[in-house]
Amino acid sequence: MHPKRWLPLLLAMPLATACVDAATPPSAQASTAGVQGQSLQELMQARGLTEADVNAALKTYTPSGKKDEYFIFASGGHGGNLIVIGVPSMRILKYVAVFTPEPWQGYGYGDQTNDLLKTGSRDGRALTWGDMHHPALSETAGDYDGQYIFVNDKANPRVAVVSLEDFTTVQMVASELIESEHGSTFVTPNTDYVIETAQYPAPLGGGYADLSEYDTKYRGAAIFWKFDRKKGRIVPEDSWAVEFPPYMQDLADAGKLASDGWAFFNSINTERATGGNLEGKPPLESGASQNDMDYLHVFDWKKAEEVVKAGKTKTIAGMRVIALQTAIDEGLLYFVPEPKSPHGIDVTPDGKEMVVGGKLDTHATVYSFEKMQQLIADQKFDGRDPYGVPILPFRDAIRGQAEIGLGPLHTQFDGRGNAYTSVFIESKVAKWSLKDLKVIEKMPVHYNIGHILAAEGDTVSPDGNYVVAMNKWAIDRFADVGPLLPQNFQLIDDRGPSMQLLYDLPIPLGEPHYSQMIKADKIKSIDVYKPAGINALTHQIDPFAVKGGEERIERKADGVHVYMTAVRSHFTPDTVRVKEGETVHLHITNIEQAKDATHGFTVGSHNIHVSLEPGKHVNVTFVADKPGVYPMYCTEFCSALHLEMAGYFLVEPK
Amino acid sequence: MHPKRWLPLLLAMPLATACVDAATPPSAQASTAGVQGQSLQELMQARGLTEADVNAALKTYTPSGKKDEYFIFASGGHGGNLIVIGVPSMRILKYVAVFTPEPWQGYGYGDQTNDLLKTGSRDGRALTWGDMHHPALSETAGDYDGQYIFVNDKANPRVAVVSLEDFTTVQMVASELIESEHGSTFVTPNTDYVIETAQYPAPLGGGYADLSEYDTKYRGAAIFWKFDRKKGRIVPEDSWAVEFPPYMQDLADAGKLASDGWAFFNSINTERATGGNLEGKPPLESGASQNDMDYLHVFDWKKAEEVVKAGKTKTIAGMRVIALQTAIDEGLLYFVPEPKSPHGIDVTPDGKEMVVGGKLDTHATVYSFEKMQQLIADQKFDGRDPYGVPILPFRDAIRGQAEIGLGPLHTQFDGRGNAYTSVFIESKVAKWSLKDLKVIEKMPVHYNIGHILAAEGDTVSPDGNYVVAMNKWAIDRFADVGPLLPQNFQLIDDRGPSMQLLYDLPIPLGEPHYSQMIKADKIKSIDVYKPAGINALTHQIDPFAVKGGEERIERKADGVHVYMTAVRSHFTPDTVRVKEGETVHLHITNIEQAKDATHGFTVGSHNIHVSLEPGKHVNVTFVADKPGVYPMYCTEFCSALHLEMAGYFLVEPK
Repeated sequence: MHPKRWLPLLLAMPLATACVDAATPPSAQASTAGVQGQSLQELMQARGLTEADVNAALKTYTPSGKKDEYFIFASGGHGGNLIVIGVPSMRILKYVAVFTPEPWQGYGYGDQTNDLLKTGSRDGRALTWGDMHHPALSETAGDYDGQYIFVNDKANPRVAVVSLEDFTTVQMVASELIESEHGSTFVTPNTDYVIETAQYPAPLGGGYADLSEYDTKYRGAAIFWKFDRKKGRIVPEDSWAVEFPPYMQDLADAGKLASDGWAFFNSINTERATGGNLEGKPPLESGASQNDMDYLHVFDWKKAEEVVKAGKTKTIAGMRVIALQTAIDEGLLYFVPEPKSPHGIDVTPDGKEMVVGGKLDTHATVYSFEKMQQLIADQKFDGRDPYGVPILPFRDAIRGQAEIGLGPLHTQFDGRGNAYTSVFIESKVAKWSLKDLKVIEKMPVHYNIGHILAAEGDTVSPDGNYVVAMNKWAIDRFADVGPLLPQNFQLIDDRGPSMQLLYDLPIPLGEPHYSQMIKADKIKSIDVYKPAGINALTHQIDPFAVKGGEERIERKADGVHVYMTAVRSHFTPDTVRVKEGETVHLHITNIEQAKDATHGFTVGSHNIHVSLEPGKHVNVTFVADKPGVYPMYCTEFCSALHLEMAGYFLVEPK
Repeated sequence: MHPKRWLPLLLAMPLATACVDAATPPSAQASTAGVQGQSLQELMQARGLTEADVNAALKTYTPSGKKDEYFIFASGGHGGNLIVIGVPSMRILKYVAVFTPEPWQGYGYGDQTNDLLKTGSRDGRALTWGDMHHPALSETAGDYDGQYIFVNDKANPRVAVVSLEDFTTVQMVASELIESEHGSTFVTPNTDYVIETAQYPAPLGGGYADLSEYDTKYRGAAIFWKFDRKKGRIVPEDSWAVEFPPYMQDLADAGKLASDGWAFFNSINTERATGGNLEGKPPLESGASQNDMDYLHVFDWKKAEEVVKAGKTKTIAGMRVIALQTAIDEGLLYFVPEPKSPHGIDVTPDGKEMVVGGKLDTHATVYSFEKMQQLIADQKFDGRDPYGVPILPFRDAIRGQAEIGLGPLHTQFDGRGNAYTSVFIESKVAKWSLKDLKVIEKMPVHYNIGHILAAEGDTVSPDGNYVVAMNKWAIDRFADVGPLLPQNFQLIDDRGPSMQLLYDLPIPLGEPHYSQMIKADKIKSIDVYKPAGINALTHQIDPFAVKGGEERIERKADGVHVYMTAVRSHFTPDTVRVKEGETVHLHITNIEQAKDATHGFTVGSHNIHVSLEPGKHVNVTFVADKPGVYPMYCTEFCSALHLEMAGYFLVEPK
């Protein structure tokens, strides 16, 4: 619709005088009521808005300067970054670079972040992307505490730690124990551990074994990365893992409250199909979909900790690993059947039950922790799997099943006794009662919903209020931008008697898988780095920090050291002269302390770029390998004389 | 405000019955009027919305499935990508990767895009970022035609071509004539040329010269990249450049209609300051701000084309360059004084006038093309600059000056005779009349506005309707996300008697400088690549495209060729066996033709990732250098059995 169709504007009339008479046709009402120039009716008509749309608009619109109530932290999928979204406005507030270099943040274009990215190498190969799936906010007593967020890389098994003090990646750990992962990251209720679970089995610790040896030499595993809250870092040497059979372990969740100390992993492909569709075998999708049941893995991590402490581990790829047989012998691992090719496993807020969605099933199956514990205590098993893991009898382990629909995947909770399950094949959100396992309402979403998200909906105290459908396909929802379409996050109001669709948010970069939604006021981020000279990786003063007045250029054995400051609107020094072949160490401090007074720095044609938030210090090392005259300048529009915040980097020929 | 404060929801009542009586206090009205559960008044009160907010909400809210009227194409600044935003919803629809590798799009993680990025190398150095400033949509007769968009890299002078058929980067050109740029990209009215102008002077063609030789050996230049519309590519061998004095040429604009055939460049630092603040000289910001006037460069590119054809050029860095003296001798280049440290130069829709904003001035100065032409015809000069360029007398060249305020930067137009100028220091948008050069209204924006944008506002036929303030600082506008803040795009409705602020959009990644806004229906993008097997770079069938049923693995002299297809939910072949050290050539075609049926592909721990939109073909070459078992899988959640769309890449030891 062309906007001129709803011109001319009327002068504003106070809203309080608005009175729309049901008996008067809309066209006659046009000039009798006004909201800042146009009547509500006029605006609705002009823009094709229904009453529900008006309601949704007013529930989401967030005026200039008003702040959002919640943050969503969404994985960026194979974009390799973390996405921060405000709720209810559904505005993306930040992309935080994690696995993929990103120059606006100077992430991967200067010494500190280059070194950080190197710690995420695997097999000695530098990796410049990741496939992020499941972010996990740090928890205290099962509730988000707003301090850290952990993220995973499915393609190149790694876990990263992002500090919410400054929304910056501060650590990356990569274990070569496993070759892919998926059930990651999930934290235990006090963030003692960050769990990373393998997906596609492979020989543990790497190395070659043919697929014909799949049953004997390929294995799954879950890594329990120990987190030191005081340091704010994962401690690899205090971490350990447990070996699993070569099923494809899928999603995971940590027990809490009633089930604290346990962790749950579901699995697909207990058929142990390996594909081979050009070798006369069925493709994996059908080979892995033969069995009616797969196995929920029920694991006692508290007891496992003791087993590790007792030294009953073998070390593989530098990681202490509890062998599968040890896990069985020590009574750490039990299986329960779960229907069919399950995807999500979600522990209820009270920790008493585990909800599993079977993607080729129609149910959400509700397991009782108490019943499972009793079965374990009674050693009441329904046989063992081929690797000897005891199997708890399905019917005795569950409270019941909710009939959800085709392709139930993931479940979140609202704290009012309701569960919300994403139903992929039907493209619906199902709201159901945990009490009687009955569906209350099903709402269509657009389209192909994967994960679902509720406000603090996977903690011990869900908020309710908002649900988000994380739809994988958008198809016809947005103006066309070529063959690669955005994902579609649909915000749903769940405060009313029925769910109401509020907003469609296209995700313009990346493919989010899972998200968490936290109250915004739980996060206490900093505005500036104080005092000036902070290394954003260590959150400490950098040894090379530069103070105003102490700028200098020094030649040392390892090259030219340039101690530089940035302040509106110049770098000091703004002329740097080096000789061809010299190694250059730039040490740059933004000595400003005003919020938003960010500078950037580049030397042309040298693939260098750093972001200098107020008080931040960065180091950049490179070799001046070609004579020439290279402009260096501030890349952030910092001031009226921003374009003049520049200088020359001169490389004199040898 | 906690959302529970506005519970409980009431049942929906038809809007047509809504009647809010001014005499009744809001609390008493709560249950008497309803918009889908709550009265307008209740919602406003609960969320702190004013009448203006309600109006703005209804003007911007775009319900699920309704499409935006306009696209904004915004540069991503030092993020190195292009941002696509829908108007009026102000939702970011896509980030298009250009200078920076981006794995979600598979850009820079497979053969075709790796090769493309290599064409943007400078001095033999691979570059993995860019500093994008000014996107330019292709034009026909001075109006956007929706076919291509051109973007620049200020840090590492390059121009890229993005096809709007599929929103994909298809070409990159890098000239080593210049060492930085800024007045780029701007197109001539029929996109004959894409203009790229140097910013920080340097010896043309590279090489070393000390700053003491700045006046004699450093130079500016403008490159006119020839665009072949039929091929959809820039033709470097048909391109040429013109040498400028060593001022810092800043923004540029091409003449149109009345001034077609001419181009305009402004400049700063006619003082020729070079900085040197650690060497006892003033920093550039003050050295470059001494003169009251700098020089607007007025250039006859049509005539220059003839000069180039006549061979009156020298070749530098492979580029035909019109020497400064030739430009003077042939009557191609004239200067006009412009006050003071100007930033924006914007040609009016009729092409008759050029508006310059002086960032240390308070005016928008309006130059008359006709007057300048007469002065040139009459050879009426006010002397010459130190390099011999004739200077047109300032007062005789202008029609007048509009008194705008402190720090006017850029100007756009609405087609109704109004101009909109961004006022940086005041943080305001000034609307003024082109007719009488009087300010009509000034509106505060938040904060530090750089460029300004109006719907098709730099074409021969601006639409009016919307203006966007591209604010560099956000400070307190959004929920805090650490020291690095988003930029703030403020959407303004300019259809009424006064400008109305509609929406604040945080830019979560990158620092946009300039944008253009085009009617969405002008862009005819494709949904899928047809027929299957298309190389997105050439938009032709790839020589290695694979058809269903023709999948195979072949060993050739140059390594193992794997001809693979992707279709929900398997790759064929899904098992690939190679020997350690073999070179592997993957050729993968997504043979699907359903919209949004995108797959992704990775081999774990090999830093490989490609995006396979429907019908797209990609090639990936790498060396299998380490024995092992590497899962390969689909990285896009494509179907219910997406996790099973996987296989193994097996590297057998030698």
